[in-house]
Amino acid sequence: MSEIFRELTVDLGERSYPIIIGSGLLGSTDLSPYVAGSQVMIVTNDTVAPLYLDKIRNSFPGKQVDTVVLPDGEKFKDWQTLNQIFDALLEQRHSRKTTLVALGGGVIGDMAGFAAACYQRGVPFIQVPTTLLSQVDSSVGGKTGINHPLGKNMIGAFHQPQVVLIDTDTLQTLPPREVSAGLAEVIKYGLIRDTEFLAWLEDNMDALVGLEAGALAEAIYRSCACKAEVVALDEREGGLRAILNLGHTFGHAIETFAGYGTWLHGEAVGTGMLMAADLSVREGMISRTDYERTANLIIRAGLPRLPPETMVPDDFMRLMAVDKKNVDGQLRLVLLKAIGNAIVTAGASSGHLSGTLSSFCQEA
Amino acid sequence: MSEIFRELTVDLGERSYPIIIGSGLLGSTDLSPYVAGSQVMIVTNDTVAPLYLDKIRNSFPGKQVDTVVLPDGEKFKDWQTLNQIFDALLEQRHSRKTTLVALGGGVIGDMAGFAAACYQRGVPFIQVPTTLLSQVDSSVGGKTGINHPLGKNMIGAFHQPQVVLIDTDTLQTLPPREVSAGLAEVIKYGLIRDTEFLAWLEDNMDALVGLEAGALAEAIYRSCACKAEVVALDEREGGLRAILNLGHTFGHAIETFAGYGTWLHGEAVGTGMLMAADLSVREGMISRTDYERTANLIIRAGLPRLPPETMVPDDFMRLMAVDKKNVDGQLRLVLLKAIGNAIVTAGASSGHLSGTLSSFCQEA
Repeated sequence: MSEIFRELTVDLGERSYPIIIGSGLLGSTDLSPYVAGSQVMIVTNDTVAPLYLDKIRNSFPGKQVDTVVLPDGEKFKDWQTLNQIFDALLEQRHSRKTTLVALGGGVIGDMAGFAAACYQRGVPFIQVPTTLLSQVDSSVGGKTGINHPLGKNMIGAFHQPQVVLIDTDTLQTLPPREVSAGLAEVIKYGLIRDTEFLAWLEDNMDALVGLEAGALAEAIYRSCACKAEVVALDEREGGLRAILNLGHTFGHAIETFAGYGTWLHGEAVGTGMLMAADLSVREGMISRTDYERTANLIIRAGLPRLPPETMVPDDFMRLMAVDKKNVDGQLRLVLLKAIGNAIVTAGASSGHLSGTLSSFCQEA
Repeated sequence: MSEIFRELTVDLGERSYPIIIGSGLLGSTDLSPYVAGSQVMIVTNDTVAPLYLDKIRNSFPGKQVDTVVLPDGEKFKDWQTLNQIFDALLEQRHSRKTTLVALGGGVIGDMAGFAAACYQRGVPFIQVPTTLLSQVDSSVGGKTGINHPLGKNMIGAFHQPQVVLIDTDTLQTLPPREVSAGLAEVIKYGLIRDTEFLAWLEDNMDALVGLEAGALAEAIYRSCACKAEVVALDEREGGLRAILNLGHTFGHAIETFAGYGTWLHGEAVGTGMLMAADLSVREGMISRTDYERTANLIIRAGLPRLPPETMVPDDFMRLMAVDKKNVDGQLRLVLLKAIGNAIVTAGASSGHLSGTLSSFCQEA
């Protein structure tokens, strides 16, 4: 049985689109109204394909539906794998009226979205996220791209989907580690913009980790609503949108150091948010009690508190130097001015930053 | 001595930009007002670098100027070579406030422009075209991209430059074959939209082939004016813009068949325009006299009349099936309803198309 829990809109003028959240939606929702042409290319990976590919194939009555199945994992978020999508599109003679469908987690969404942004200079696409992380974060907002050996998400485009279809049932098959990774981004929304939601998370974290459907749907809805609001205010990250990167500068350094895919993105963001909260304490912005409150949520979500054992402060400094937020060589970080109020600043003292890095790096 | 011959604007609202045409401009024009940040990456190739790189390096006083020199040729318009630009940007720690500068012909412009469209999800860029073809066509209008083994320009983006700087002096060092290739696109503007310009070309073709500066500047100005007008009316090729592809569907098939770079793009377009004109005669749109008028200009410009000797009609049919203009498997072609009036149509009779292919293919 299918049931729509909530629907909301990302408000971007003529590029506005709906986010549909519910259970049993995969296979029972007709997505053909969102397809302008007659061709559809479903992009998925070899983990998700056996679970949901048949269901989604039935969502486009009357259309030519082709599929391309990529290997699963962040380490395949590269040009070689992206090119498999272009190969499939050209071999099946997809025109520039085709629509791509991303069925999978954040890696699939980023790659299918970027392929859609570039194929014949741009075709539409649909997001069908199947992991918690992609449902609450990466499927909304139009950021697409691939990694480069020298930096994560360094090559990409802003390209908004036609619709985001979130079926919460897919979370029931998700490994616990990936649930935790998704919860990192959920906690993020509370920390940067929504203290009420943060309190709700403190009350419901056990239900979320236990995959209770109602709690998950509510957390996804509130996360998407927060993200949609920020993206509508600043689509191309001229300013405000950068707060969505809380924990990501430290986190990307961890991911690059560990090798893409060794740490899950959300795990690295979890640790990164703790580091950002610690630096915010040193900068006199939040209290040690606020830090502990953050740490408690991170721990209850099952996320790691510390970066990889062998990582030293210099590793962070070197890897954070290529962050996209940096301007003219100046490191810019998202910090917490208060719980529920994130800011972007190039003004953090290097002494305080050293203090944070030393206290988190185990061999420092 | 530097002298600005003409300046015109591509009118795209907040993405409008100037095209500056003149002689002696390279090295004497301060381009720093067009650079928002403090970093500049000049992208060029190993043919153009010895001639003009030093001059253009001096055009950005007060900025950090880095360079990346790519191998010269259409066969390098691929992902591997594009990645050299990303490598250089990341190794030199260019932020998302950097500006890319394309110094070279169409391949450099397309690749630097696409790199700018994708680097950190989009940075600004400047076009400094040094070939006739890039000055009259590819540097204006924001089409960027690379080739795929299964089709030309299949991966790319619409990304408009900040300014186009055209120094006509660079044409004096251009090999005659490349002058001819550029003249193909010049003739195209007369054919699709400007009979007065076509008559001017008939009067001035010898001066153009002889590289007379005044004639070249005038031809470039009128070509850019025509392209700017079409692009302003239809930036993303929803309709009208497709007429700029006169001769390109046949031409791309020739380029792909011959192997990228064996035929110059303009050479293939020249032959392609003749084939389109021939088909237009068969469709009863233009007269055989109009065709001969077109053929005379193509021949006087030094362009080939026939496709590669070994190319058969089936090669055209197979290779044209992946053209970007096609919709739902239907071949769409740009034809001449009259001299000076091009249209896009899916309605050409297959019998007439066979007739054209048979008469141009030497082994048919």
